[in-house]
Amino acid sequence: MLASTFSGLGALLLAGLAAAQTPESACRSSNGSQPFDGMYREAARPQIHFSPSSGFMNDPNGMFIANGTHHLYYQYNPNSTVAGNQHWGHATSPDGYEWTNQEIALAPEREGQGIFSGSAVIDVNNTSGFFDGTVAAETRIVAIYTLNTPTEQTQDIAYSRDGGYTFTKYEGNPVISINSTQFRDPKVFWDAQAQLWVMAVAHTQSWEIGFYTSPDLKTWEERSRFSSGLRGYQYECPDLIEVPVQGGPHDGQRAKVLVVSINPGAPLGGSVTQYFIGDLNSGSDGFEDFTFRTNDTAVRFTSFGKDEYAAQSFYNSGDEGAIYQAWLGNWQYAQAVPTANATSGWRSEQSLPRRLRLEWVQQNPQTWAYVLAQEPLSFGSLAGTDLAPSNVSGNTTVALNGTGAFDVRALFSLPANATVEPRANLRIRTQGEGFLDIGADWAGDGATVFVDRRKAGTEWADTNHFFTDRMSASLMPVPRVANDSSSDSLIEVRVVIDRIVSEAYYNNGTSVAAVLTFWDNDEVPSFVDVTTSSSQLKLESLSVVPIASGWKC
Amino acid sequence: MLASTFSGLGALLLAGLAAAQTPESACRSSNGSQPFDGMYREAARPQIHFSPSSGFMNDPNGMFIANGTHHLYYQYNPNSTVAGNQHWGHATSPDGYEWTNQEIALAPEREGQGIFSGSAVIDVNNTSGFFDGTVAAETRIVAIYTLNTPTEQTQDIAYSRDGGYTFTKYEGNPVISINSTQFRDPKVFWDAQAQLWVMAVAHTQSWEIGFYTSPDLKTWEERSRFSSGLRGYQYECPDLIEVPVQGGPHDGQRAKVLVVSINPGAPLGGSVTQYFIGDLNSGSDGFEDFTFRTNDTAVRFTSFGKDEYAAQSFYNSGDEGAIYQAWLGNWQYAQAVPTANATSGWRSEQSLPRRLRLEWVQQNPQTWAYVLAQEPLSFGSLAGTDLAPSNVSGNTTVALNGTGAFDVRALFSLPANATVEPRANLRIRTQGEGFLDIGADWAGDGATVFVDRRKAGTEWADTNHFFTDRMSASLMPVPRVANDSSSDSLIEVRVVIDRIVSEAYYNNGTSVAAVLTFWDNDEVPSFVDVTTSSSQLKLESLSVVPIASGWKC
Repeated sequence: MLASTFSGLGALLLAGLAAAQTPESACRSSNGSQPFDGMYREAARPQIHFSPSSGFMNDPNGMFIANGTHHLYYQYNPNSTVAGNQHWGHATSPDGYEWTNQEIALAPEREGQGIFSGSAVIDVNNTSGFFDGTVAAETRIVAIYTLNTPTEQTQDIAYSRDGGYTFTKYEGNPVISINSTQFRDPKVFWDAQAQLWVMAVAHTQSWEIGFYTSPDLKTWEERSRFSSGLRGYQYECPDLIEVPVQGGPHDGQRAKVLVVSINPGAPLGGSVTQYFIGDLNSGSDGFEDFTFRTNDTAVRFTSFGKDEYAAQSFYNSGDEGAIYQAWLGNWQYAQAVPTANATSGWRSEQSLPRRLRLEWVQQNPQTWAYVLAQEPLSFGSLAGTDLAPSNVSGNTTVALNGTGAFDVRALFSLPANATVEPRANLRIRTQGEGFLDIGADWAGDGATVFVDRRKAGTEWADTNHFFTDRMSASLMPVPRVANDSSSDSLIEVRVVIDRIVSEAYYNNGTSVAAVLTFWDNDEVPSFVDVTTSSSQLKLESLSVVPIASGWKC
Repeated sequence: MLASTFSGLGALLLAGLAAAQTPESACRSSNGSQPFDGMYREAARPQIHFSPSSGFMNDPNGMFIANGTHHLYYQYNPNSTVAGNQHWGHATSPDGYEWTNQEIALAPEREGQGIFSGSAVIDVNNTSGFFDGTVAAETRIVAIYTLNTPTEQTQDIAYSRDGGYTFTKYEGNPVISINSTQFRDPKVFWDAQAQLWVMAVAHTQSWEIGFYTSPDLKTWEERSRFSSGLRGYQYECPDLIEVPVQGGPHDGQRAKVLVVSINPGAPLGGSVTQYFIGDLNSGSDGFEDFTFRTNDTAVRFTSFGKDEYAAQSFYNSGDEGAIYQAWLGNWQYAQAVPTANATSGWRSEQSLPRRLRLEWVQQNPQTWAYVLAQEPLSFGSLAGTDLAPSNVSGNTTVALNGTGAFDVRALFSLPANATVEPRANLRIRTQGEGFLDIGADWAGDGATVFVDRRKAGTEWADTNHFFTDRMSASLMPVPRVANDSSSDSLIEVRVVIDRIVSEAYYNNGTSVAAVLTFWDNDEVPSFVDVTTSSSQLKLESLSVVPIASGWKC
């Protein structure tokens, strides 16, 4: 197991990090119970990914953006480093990276209750009647969540008149009860055309996503159920997300993507998220019928990594397109990972906030298709000065000098007449033995992108039967000149490195994988080695931008 | 890399194995060119799985059973340990385990041609006109294969008047040409109701399975195309297989399963096989329309391991139900594995022949579904005397005394009122450091079954970015008394251990995973440790049956 005290080289590095920024004891802890003492400086703590100060976190919940503030709620057990006693924790951020822990937003009333996953909306028009003229439109927040008890899962609501900081549970709860213990994770959005609220909710063990509508968030009518694709044990955490379309026959339009989480039963084991492209309102008579129909019968996954689940979009993400975050966890080992041994005792983190779009992407020489592309929001003023040498060619090592995270982007090109099938690799390594390889292998007219954490810390990994080491996916390199197969083929490998979290984004986020790496001896990533296996494969550009920690203390 | 000369403990073991049975130089080699010299006694050679004496093998092709003989053809490069220069190799067996290499059945005519994958039928009624009264009905064999050239892939046929040993290519080839380079892997079966031959064939890069019909195997009519599910880069190797149904609403009936291989693009990386349950002949007017329709929109995989691809059923498998075999390879590393360094220079093996059925299996507390269950054919007289102690309780180690393979079956039971979530594990280990863990974790009202090869040889595995270490799947334990949740829950873990191949079958083959393990230092599996993590989990029964080598020399 990871040592709970700092030792060796890791301790030296950590001391350096801790000295660099002074903890501010005034900062709020996730459970509101104790002063915050700089625990976000621990070696394993991600610096721009949200993690709770202590306790156990899972699904993101109730996310919305109002008045420029990102509100993240999350499944939270404040008293333990494993799941149970579920609350909604709460944190806010101006940019998705600089987080402030807030008081717990929703707590169970009694032993045996749990406030399970759900969503939140801004009821600007006061459809619910919970608000009056004293509450500004953008602070009229209604949370829709599952109340879990031993005998039933019901959909309940709570309202906040202060913009999401404190909530009052609706006295008329539950708003939906179907006498089922397997009915949860409501995600609600506003259908402007129908002038109705729409809820996607999981009938978990029949692998169905139910759709309900409501005029007021209180009274709900069941409209349809949808089932398709990979099944596993159960479905959870649906979200129907409107995204902009880039390229292809629907360029410039908007499309709907239904995201469904599955656990257990992922092909990689445990937890996974699949998505379907389609529409909710495409009845043959042209009227809205609130039945989800897919554009095709394809099954796709949001990520080829093993550590993403329960993705949810922010309500009111803005005109540029939806933003979502996922829990960076897999139920096969999320309650066993060694971060619980840190001084502060915590487990799990959320992904970076990612802007979504559907992009028209070549799948093989013959066929193109739409895929869900994801890219992290701008790091804004947190981004520092590029650490990479200005002229790169061939193999390059860059020291990761900084105490926050690092945004590494490497663009590789291979001539069309190349005589090799080369590898491009980014090796992220500590000052010890640990390394993580993230790269791409050109092969024939395609490529395979990969993440290999086999050596990125072995002490804990050796003890767990489910912490799969290697993940990969098929990806077509992009010709430098569109539709010109005689031009160079390009692959960009981007990795955001944040201590125990690495998020890989290939070719503008058209392929994504987030992986956790539990480095031995409290080590932290210290170098990135960028290599090509052949001189025919050129490293065209490289940037290694340090991102300052989003934690103030 | 694996040493190409035998050394250390492995060499001692190998010497013992080699001494145990005398090579017979009269045995035929896979490429027909040199006398056979006992190379099937090499440490890494599977003893009841087919492997070529030398050269590179991939997809099984043209399989049929006639007069009690299993005919296996296979994609074969006789001159190299990587793919290319594709031939159809050929081997025969009375039982699927005792193989005799035969002369190469189909070879390309000229540089640049390849005899790609396909199937074979027994044209008992001489629909093709290739036969006459001098050829017994059961020896009228027609092979349907893809001729690959740089400019096109066509479907061609060849006929054998001697029961499949020698073939004559049809002078009217190709029988289907659509001016495509991405059109291959024809699998043909007889539709007794329609009195027509039906072909399933892959339009690989549009992710479509085409269906054609023919009265005579020479003239073909396109009927439909089917597309669904996971896509990846391309589809290959379809097979529409009729299987018996066991349990559930269709108990005792027959059903059709469409098997589709995908490469690359598997969720685990590289190659995978998905299947769909449905029917080809269910037009709304009741007539046969040769359009494949699924019973549901679910996507399922034939195996949760990473080393199975291109499964194909035997034509004329018999009344007990279809039998199929798969190539035990993944294109991500099949051409790199260390068996090429054996004295004989070979790569790849086929799976055990498995009897198929659809079984009605509980998926979670609420829902049941049909799944493709697979179990190896009886080992018959190759099976020896059980090596396990007659009374087992608690943890047990059994030495794998024998020179062939081993069929290990362990049944575990957990009381309904258990207070633990225990693990059952079979650790297959060598006399060195290597071990493979195959087991099951009870969790809540379900379970996860797993295969962990992280320590089953690390020397080569450390060098390859795609040789994923850990695989798992969701599986419901079976109550001892049907539908009685107060009775013990049972999981049977069965593993057929055959040197570098282990095939895991859970609960009568309702979940399956085949994995390759490249042991260090030419070691072979020598022990199996059967353990339970809690005394509440009982080992109810254990058998460890040695299976004699199927190779005569």
